[in-house]
Amino acid sequence: MLSKLASKCDLRIEPGRIDIEERPVPEPGPGDVLVRVTSVGVCGSDAHYYREGRIGEFVVDAPLVLGHEAAGLVVAVGAGVPAGRIGERVSIEPQRPDPGTEETRRGDYNLCPHMRFYATPPVDGALCDYVTIGSHFAHSVPETVSDDAAALCEPLSVGIAAVRKARVTAGSRVLISGAGPVGIVTTQVARAFGAVEIVVTDLDECRRAAAGTFGATATSDPRTDTVPEGRFDSYIDCSGAPAAVGSGIRAVRPGGTVVLVGSGSESMSLPVQLIQNRELVLTGVFRYANTWPTALALVETGRVDLDSMVTARFPLEKTVDALESDHVPGSIKAVVQVTPGARKESQQ
Amino acid sequence: MLSKLASKCDLRIEPGRIDIEERPVPEPGPGDVLVRVTSVGVCGSDAHYYREGRIGEFVVDAPLVLGHEAAGLVVAVGAGVPAGRIGERVSIEPQRPDPGTEETRRGDYNLCPHMRFYATPPVDGALCDYVTIGSHFAHSVPETVSDDAAALCEPLSVGIAAVRKARVTAGSRVLISGAGPVGIVTTQVARAFGAVEIVVTDLDECRRAAAGTFGATATSDPRTDTVPEGRFDSYIDCSGAPAAVGSGIRAVRPGGTVVLVGSGSESMSLPVQLIQNRELVLTGVFRYANTWPTALALVETGRVDLDSMVTARFPLEKTVDALESDHVPGSIKAVVQVTPGARKESQQ
Amino acid sequence: MLSKLASKCDLRIEPGRIDIEERPVPEPGPGDVLVRVTSVGVCGSDAHYYREGRIGEFVVDAPLVLGHEAAGLVVAVGAGVPAGRIGERVSIEPQRPDPGTEETRRGDYNLCPHMRFYATPPVDGALCDYVTIGSHFAHSVPETVSDDAAALCEPLSVGIAAVRKARVTAGSRVLISGAGPVGIVTTQVARAFGAVEIVVTDLDECRRAAAGTFGATATSDPRTDTVPEGRFDSYIDCSGAPAAVGSGIRAVRPGGTVVLVGSGSESMSLPVQLIQNRELVLTGVFRYANTWPTALALVETGRVDLDSMVTARFPLEKTVDALESDHVPGSIKAVVQVTPGARKESQQ
Amino acid sequence: MLSKLASKCDLRIEPGRIDIEERPVPEPGPGDVLVRVTSVGVCGSDAHYYREGRIGEFVVDAPLVLGHEAAGLVVAVGAGVPAGRIGERVSIEPQRPDPGTEETRRGDYNLCPHMRFYATPPVDGALCDYVTIGSHFAHSVPETVSDDAAALCEPLSVGIAAVRKARVTAGSRVLISGAGPVGIVTTQVARAFGAVEIVVTDLDECRRAAAGTFGATATSDPRTDTVPEGRFDSYIDCSGAPAAVGSGIRAVRPGGTVVLVGSGSESMSLPVQLIQNRELVLTGVFRYANTWPTALALVETGRVDLDSMVTARFPLEKTVDALESDHVPGSIKAVVQVTPGARKESQQ
Repeated sequence: MLSKLASKCDLRIEPGRIDIEERPVPEPGPGDVLVRVTSVGVCGSDAHYYREGRIGEFVVDAPLVLGHEAAGLVVAVGAGVPAGRIGERVSIEPQRPDPGTEETRRGDYNLCPHMRFYATPPVDGALCDYVTIGSHFAHSVPETVSDDAAALCEPLSVGIAAVRKARVTAGSRVLISGAGPVGIVTTQVARAFGAVEIVVTDLDECRRAAAGTFGATATSDPRTDTVPEGRFDSYIDCSGAPAAVGSGIRAVRPGGTVVLVGSGSESMSLPVQLIQNRELVLTGVFRYANTWPTALALVETGRVDLDSMVTARFPLEKTVDALESDHVPGSIKAVVQVTPGARKESQQ
Repeated sequence: MLSKLASKCDLRIEPGRIDIEERPVPEPGPGDVLVRVTSVGVCGSDAHYYREGRIGEFVVDAPLVLGHEAAGLVVAVGAGVPAGRIGERVSIEPQRPDPGTEETRRGDYNLCPHMRFYATPPVDGALCDYVTIGSHFAHSVPETVSDDAAALCEPLSVGIAAVRKARVTAGSRVLISGAGPVGIVTTQVARAFGAVEIVVTDLDECRRAAAGTFGATATSDPRTDTVPEGRFDSYIDCSGAPAAVGSGIRAVRPGGTVVLVGSGSESMSLPVQLIQNRELVLTGVFRYANTWPTALALVETGRVDLDSMVTARFPLEKTVDALESDHVPGSIKAVVQVTPGARKESQQ
Repeated sequence: MLSKLASKCDLRIEPGRIDIEERPVPEPGPGDVLVRVTSVGVCGSDAHYYREGRIGEFVVDAPLVLGHEAAGLVVAVGAGVPAGRIGERVSIEPQRPDPGTEETRRGDYNLCPHMRFYATPPVDGALCDYVTIGSHFAHSVPETVSDDAAALCEPLSVGIAAVRKARVTAGSRVLISGAGPVGIVTTQVARAFGAVEIVVTDLDECRRAAAGTFGATATSDPRTDTVPEGRFDSYIDCSGAPAAVGSGIRAVRPGGTVVLVGSGSESMSLPVQLIQNRELVLTGVFRYANTWPTALALVETGRVDLDSMVTARFPLEKTVDALESDHVPGSIKAVVQVTPGARKESQQ
Repeated sequence: MLSKLASKCDLRIEPGRIDIEERPVPEPGPGDVLVRVTSVGVCGSDAHYYREGRIGEFVVDAPLVLGHEAAGLVVAVGAGVPAGRIGERVSIEPQRPDPGTEETRRGDYNLCPHMRFYATPPVDGALCDYVTIGSHFAHSVPETVSDDAAALCEPLSVGIAAVRKARVTAGSRVLISGAGPVGIVTTQVARAFGAVEIVVTDLDECRRAAAGTFGATATSDPRTDTVPEGRFDSYIDCSGAPAAVGSGIRAVRPGGTVVLVGSGSESMSLPVQLIQNRELVLTGVFRYANTWPTALALVETGRVDLDSMVTARFPLEKTVDALESDHVPGSIKAVVQVTPGARKESQQ
């Protein structure tokens, strides 16, 4: 029955152009579930593909469905998946690692070389009515968590991955540069991991104010304030700006950590002598692995507030407006509510 | 001048008897500070020495000053310590490890085989007017932290050591058995480390209620309730009761942790096959190392509330009442306020 | 074509009885390979099932093919597996975890609750002509590694898992109790990880001598020798004997590790006070995960010698003799050479 | 009696000039030992101070005794040190951390901000007859270890620190750039930690040959050979050359480690996007902590061969020749034998 239905899809056609097209509803393969999408968060990388058509080596050379921050309702299951999952509200972990690679086997499945990831060419994303995903990557959502929050477990997972790699724990002092959506969610996560001092830097006053609302104990304007040298246990860059990274690294105490989350240029000049003399541990974050149970637990218990990060909501037809909303002052996160009614239906 | 003053000391003479004696104020040795004691928490081990005169291999065979949870004011410094420390309010980390042993050098100074620890025969403790301690083990206390809370950073440190070894992090589910002072402070620490589910078991209803006040998300009576098998990431025993330990271990998921904090008998029958089949990691806590900065940060930022754990306060002359107060229903922690006025003096 | 062939299987029928039965050659499922078995090591658990019919909760209540230490030749592939694998010599990792469980996803796939493991009822093992296994659990074997050694990568993996959990590294001092095959392979692995002192205890003089041959720097008879208290960084039990475990734990330095590999009784009385006072870390080993690349590298480079551990070889028809050979003095490891000629065929 | 003796000291006066001066034999302070120096290795940093007079922020602005790789004989002890140490042969760990700093307390004493380190202005080094050092930093040397090897435990410690941070373990594949003394000792350490593949790159054929002698499984000329991308678990730079670091980082597999040991410029352009996408962990080595027990164990058991690294020996009067010998083809390590006879004396 489902296969007769059509799935409206937002297709990125060319720079600045999204067309809606009706496609057949996909069949869930063995081990998959079919999800009717409810809410999709719009990410900087979506806006980047929409405008530029490429990110690094990934090039959009055919119409592509964007969107990888998604929630929905399970409406059908593939072979081997219990039918009891139908009707379940889920948060989608938008990746399909190969279970056999060495990386996946040792638990670092985000590093799997055969990964297929939503909205990364040529794999379609979630800005459409129906998607399929591996059953175990469709995480059951508690009743008290909204569809939007379920979708935003994806950027939350980036924050969790970053804060874990930064080894933040109770009592930590953390410096974060960049108060965009990732910086704000990382701020919240650092607080949830027990950080007692969280300083967030950003050039934009409005974004600094938002960081304060979401858990920063202090904010700082890099043009006028100086971050104290050697004070922080961890520095997490969510800006991608070389100047921020340079002063951020200097702000870390001997033996502390540096985690690069923000995307910037391919290379960057780094103060290697200081990294050596302080034995700093520097690493980066590439997506996430094993974060969803933590993400859902933090949202359900109110340790992290995702709903308040949603500053604008759009229907599927207005995806272009959602993609453009990153330029709106005060904007943190735009969400496309693909099927706003789905949640209520599921509760009847 | 100080050396002419007398230091009133509570001496444990024989089972159930404490005498006050005036002793010369000690001289701070090189690297030491002299501390006028303000507040001393009374611990189960103090009560044990007071009543039984021994704990394991440690035997009280001469009059002994009890007390190892202590705060005070720096009133003099030994050679090599900046005079500027005089007047500082401090929380005392009551241990003197040997800096040269392999354990101390690698950071596990609590395991130093040459340790001298307060109130462990033959080393005197803090239930007296003046004590000396290594300058770096007298931790500066923020203004907003009370003397009692500064003293109770010691049991808080036990909780921090336990929760670290249990690898509790954001999203963890933790089972704690025993809702005495250590169980309650461990509950608070688990919450501060981001645990989202903290189940505390105790036979005593009153103590279970207290656990609920301090962060337990659920409490359980082991006589009537069954703890779910394999549910928890970590189990921390603060009871020393074999029955609790047995069912606690069974409650841990594969790959989870078991930390034994409570003192019980020398040996215990443990379910080794289950430990093997689930690859549980079991360890114990022996005091603490590198916990004070975290302890003070958690107290200062309100993540842990120590003041509310103080259920009775006594002057130095009433130390026996403090030692006996563990039998008082509703008691969590008794404090001996050795020099109640000291703090105000220091602020003038 | 293969499906017309028959696969001779050793079936464990009742205590002490093995019958050979011809079964159809299995079809490799999607993602699987079909392996013509060349060599199968006989393990203590095989002998246990053969004699007793049960290990703990696992009961043999139908004819069962034993054997889980196996090597062979890939002769067919299932859907999704490159045909190029046909002809490859492989060492079989005899487990099929569920890729979707939390344990598998975080890399601890040995703890997967839905595991299907060779020769564990009701899953058949490898003492037969043909088996199937997931393609990624059929590890390619370098030319210089013999079929027997390829089979014995399985017990080697147990040793690797144990030595990793024991945190053995360059310069470590390790105590191992039990010089059976697992103790001996663990001795070799400890040496390969850089341990400089490896003391092996066993009641049997012959087995102690064997341990000396395979890397023990000293051996010890628990009836006459006393192991020095607190000397070792790690203690690994490969005996399952409570007396060994008790004195082994006492031999570990503060902060050291205890790893229980040997199977013994369900519970054991352990010196918990000592575990606490020394903050020992005690854990167990349940099979292995992510060990094969290391195992093959150690064998290929000669760091571990598996061939010399084979003290007897039998054809498939003599499996009972292999299973009984654990009582033969001087025996370390018996191997059933199911298809001795297979290797040469593959090289032509 | 000793105080009447004179201690001949090599003083670095100005670029290219070393004068010998007689100074009073120092008195060992509390906790110290007085060591009659036997052998001192000459390090690149000594040559650098000798020629340039500065390394980064450390400037030689007064006559300075060089040398920090030293062994000797204990000839006197300070207060609190057992007289039984007199006559002991020792390897000197040439650092004096402050036991009270946070870094020292948690075991990272190399990062202590109050460190006093041999031959780092204004602290004198070991190219003289007598030095003092903290008793616990004078490590007892087994009889079978030569004076030269005892001195070279210092560069060995750098290698151990690097290989630990690189997380090298049994089965690891390691890439090392730079086959100078540090590269060669790191190669040996990697082998002792169980690495099975150790590729060493260097521009100099002679040095590549030496690396092969000391454990490299392959060597590579960066001008003609290409290191395979993503192949290695760890990359350790011992060259300080930006080109080597760039291609070294690319050679590391996802999730692998990069350790920068070689000193180069203050900053370096690094491929941050690759570090992020592969989640590489990059860090540096600043001296060492807790390495001597491992160093001595590896030398004593023959896992590491330091004696064969000594390619030239000089008396104290010829220190300039030792400092210049780094330009001699085939040179690996020059040693100044300050008191060649001391060892034999101690054995009589």
